[in-house]
Amino acid sequence: MKLYCFGESGNAYKVALALELLNESWEPVHVDFFNGETRSPEFRKINVMGEVPVLVDGDVTVSQSGNILDYISTITGELGGTFAADRREVSRWILFDTQKLSGQAGPLRFMMNFLPEDKRDQAVIDWMTGRFRAALQILEAHLAGNDWIASGKVTIADCACAGYLFYEEPFAFDRGEWPNIDAWLDRLSALPGWKPPYDLMQRAFPPAS
Amino acid sequence: MKLYCFGESGNAYKVALALELLNESWEPVHVDFFNGETRSPEFRKINVMGEVPVLVDGDVTVSQSGNILDYISTITGELGGTFAADRREVSRWILFDTQKLSGQAGPLRFMMNFLPEDKRDQAVIDWMTGRFRAALQILEAHLAGNDWIASGKVTIADCACAGYLFYEEPFAFDRGEWPNIDAWLDRLSALPGWKPPYDLMQRAFPPAS
Repeated sequence: MKLYCFGESGNAYKVALALELLNESWEPVHVDFFNGETRSPEFRKINVMGEVPVLVDGDVTVSQSGNILDYISTITGELGGTFAADRREVSRWILFDTQKLSGQAGPLRFMMNFLPEDKRDQAVIDWMTGRFRAALQILEAHLAGNDWIASGKVTIADCACAGYLFYEEPFAFDRGEWPNIDAWLDRLSALPGWKPPYDLMQRAFPPAS
Repeated sequence: MKLYCFGESGNAYKVALALELLNESWEPVHVDFFNGETRSPEFRKINVMGEVPVLVDGDVTVSQSGNILDYISTITGELGGTFAADRREVSRWILFDTQKLSGQAGPLRFMMNFLPEDKRDQAVIDWMTGRFRAALQILEAHLAGNDWIASGKVTIADCACAGYLFYEEPFAFDRGEWPNIDAWLDRLSALPGWKPPYDLMQRAFPPAS
């Protein structure tokens, strides 16, 4: 399997993480996002949505990270919910992540770290931070009574919700402030196969220090 | 089936629309969102995420609009993709909608119409408008060669992507500017069972005029 990705993409990392936890054979194809490759006509032939990640598995091309996670879970029979109700629970947390957790963390982290400074807008950062924190509160409350997001075991919903939270660039997320999330991230990173994002995918920017 | 909703919620409308297109029997349960009901402890017992829509079908409670749409499609065998590749295509457009189309249209329309004027921020409106328009461009390009979003027929992906676009409040969306989207919305509203949002769900605010 080939994963079109770049290191800074939390959505790509979700997929890379699931592949590693499952010990699948895959290779990253680095996409030069910061110089516009995802918006090129060539890349749009691979994905009309103009974004990574895209997974190519033989004749099958899949995009949208939540959709790719579902594909991986389906073909392997692993990391999914066991029963119909569990599967719905997995699905709704992936959608929650898409809209409210990574949906805010992604553009917030992008603006705070990768946009040129003259294009960063504090009012927008404050707005996204507020929405991101509201989502973190929901996750923190949910994890008070649950070791994993859904189904009582690690699933693709954990890969989705944790994707951005393992990055170390500043984006208004301090693990120490969220004890249940912090403990859950520790459980995830203790799993066989877990690796941090930049160990799995080439980054576009050099390390900050 | 009971749908916890309020008229202004495009995410609730997506579900109401699918139920109407399928001629399903359902009743709306009005939720007083604008006075904080979704954030109350009582409502969080129904949905820990503190939001509508929530569908209750006998013993089954489902939340997240994309997940409810999938549930409705699964139990009825209608409005889904026919083959595995079609189903993935339906799924990825629902996720695209969740993140980038409704994911921007929802908070943008909320800020422009329902937040008190002193809490509206032009920089945030401009930022969300830019992201919303980028998503509209992707949808417009996709609909150049497709009558429906996925699978060559109307599916839950159409209900999802169109949900916010049938509302008449101003939110930086002018149908005349997007001819393919405009024609697709016309096709949708010509379907038996189609109704506009406020015919299906009680609104919280009185009509503007």
